[in-house]
Amino acid sequence: MNLNNELTRLKDLVEKELDKTLPKVEGKQKNVIEAMRYSAFAGGKRLRPILVLKSCELVGGNIKDAMPFALALEMIHTYSLIHDDLPSMDDDDYRRGKPTNHKVYGESIAILAGDGLLNCAYETMINHITENIEDSKEYIKAFTVIAKASGVYGMIGGQVVDIMSESDSFDEKTLDFIHNHKTSALIEASIIAGGLIGGANKEELKRLKEYGKAIGLSFQIRDDILDIIGNKEKLGKDIGSDQSNQKATFVSLYGLEESERKTEKLCKKAINSLDIFNGDNKLFFKDLAEYLVLRDY
Amino acid sequence: MNLNNELTRLKDLVEKELDKTLPKVEGKQKNVIEAMRYSAFAGGKRLRPILVLKSCELVGGNIKDAMPFALALEMIHTYSLIHDDLPSMDDDDYRRGKPTNHKVYGESIAILAGDGLLNCAYETMINHITENIEDSKEYIKAFTVIAKASGVYGMIGGQVVDIMSESDSFDEKTLDFIHNHKTSALIEASIIAGGLIGGANKEELKRLKEYGKAIGLSFQIRDDILDIIGNKEKLGKDIGSDQSNQKATFVSLYGLEESERKTEKLCKKAINSLDIFNGDNKLFFKDLAEYLVLRDY
Repeated sequence: MNLNNELTRLKDLVEKELDKTLPKVEGKQKNVIEAMRYSAFAGGKRLRPILVLKSCELVGGNIKDAMPFALALEMIHTYSLIHDDLPSMDDDDYRRGKPTNHKVYGESIAILAGDGLLNCAYETMINHITENIEDSKEYIKAFTVIAKASGVYGMIGGQVVDIMSESDSFDEKTLDFIHNHKTSALIEASIIAGGLIGGANKEELKRLKEYGKAIGLSFQIRDDILDIIGNKEKLGKDIGSDQSNQKATFVSLYGLEESERKTEKLCKKAINSLDIFNGDNKLFFKDLAEYLVLRDY
Repeated sequence: MNLNNELTRLKDLVEKELDKTLPKVEGKQKNVIEAMRYSAFAGGKRLRPILVLKSCELVGGNIKDAMPFALALEMIHTYSLIHDDLPSMDDDDYRRGKPTNHKVYGESIAILAGDGLLNCAYETMINHITENIEDSKEYIKAFTVIAKASGVYGMIGGQVVDIMSESDSFDEKTLDFIHNHKTSALIEASIIAGGLIGGANKEELKRLKEYGKAIGLSFQIRDDILDIIGNKEKLGKDIGSDQSNQKATFVSLYGLEESERKTEKLCKKAINSLDIFNGDNKLFFKDLAEYLVLRDY
């Protein structure tokens, strides 16, 4: 299995299903739907939904069963980006090389588009639970994991502390909190949700969690590194914004070299946690961990 | 049964349970939790949760079973108020006699507090489903009704059109759309959700829906009327704001007299839909319909 081919295949599949699942641009409220779709289709690696699908497959499940949860995670991720980019938050004009949602649709529609995507994520999951009502226990568990990771004890909590840390002084503990909550929580939840839907046993779930924690953190540190050494065109956004926003990042606390060492260490940890698995899908997760450490966008 | 006593009893009960269910003000993310609680406990009639509880009881259910859904609806209602009040939306400084969320906590925390409440609503419902996993079908149906009423085909859709109608010219159809979506959708969903949880049959659900539609609309028209003739102190907010925002309202389209006639007609319609029910709870819903037409806050 070639990693890039598989990532492209799954990205296309996710985007096709996302297009089918999001509301159609019609009706009197079509502005907000257009805004939701604008950000949902503004590019992106589709990492979270791909993790849901592949971890479901890794433990022997069928990716079709996991698709609604994959889409929900992408909707939640997209809503969080729209709200993070708002003038009162990070005040970003570009995201993935395109003007941010509020730059195109205005602030009020951008806020509502985010709200709409978050709500749509939960609608998508509950609809799938309803369609599989007789056999819904694992779906309900996956739903719970995703909901918790998205809330104030997960992503939202991380974003709050991230915002506040811009003006306050910050320490290692605060940085850990931000990383674990703002980015890792949702990445970890993606892998756990896929595992639950695929029927993972206790040991498999434990390993998936370890893997998720490790790549979630390495993903965030790589983001911090790219904000310093990245290429603006490839990233599709300005670099150096963490510095100018006086943001707490791994790089600002430990320096570039130590940050790169840390991602390599996390990569090894992630790969070690895979040793109970087998086959092509294990290879996919190994290659993915390595790719995330070296990615340039 | 005295309506006011019963409303007060249920309001107190809802607030007690809301306090137990919302996250505690602790941890690094405590700012956002404090902001969520500020708006959740800034007063209000608790109409939506009370409707959930009473419609559950009306069809023979136990209000304990409906409580998490009642709380979820209040959280969704509260989040929508926080986001509606933002500077880029209605730009309101006061709500229920207190400074609005963003006036106290700033815009970024207010946006995240709204996000947090919406997410917490879904967490609260899925937790109850998990705790009753063997008997969760009606809960899942109630969840679905609430999720749909909250999204772009419900409340969010209404808010978008409401915002856009401020600057555009508006007609009867647009006004109907705003009323049916922005306010009625959630009120109707409250009554249906309670009915589903209480075990309502098809005919009972049909009647509950009729009742919800009628009082949802009369509630909104009364709001529009109070924006003209209301008392600022009693309302806890400025009056005349619809006019100064050039908002589409029933009163601006049909005038005060016709609006009052309309609420009386809707009240009768609501009461008529109750004729298959019996007992004290039927009386509660009759008295409530009459109260909503005459309320002064």
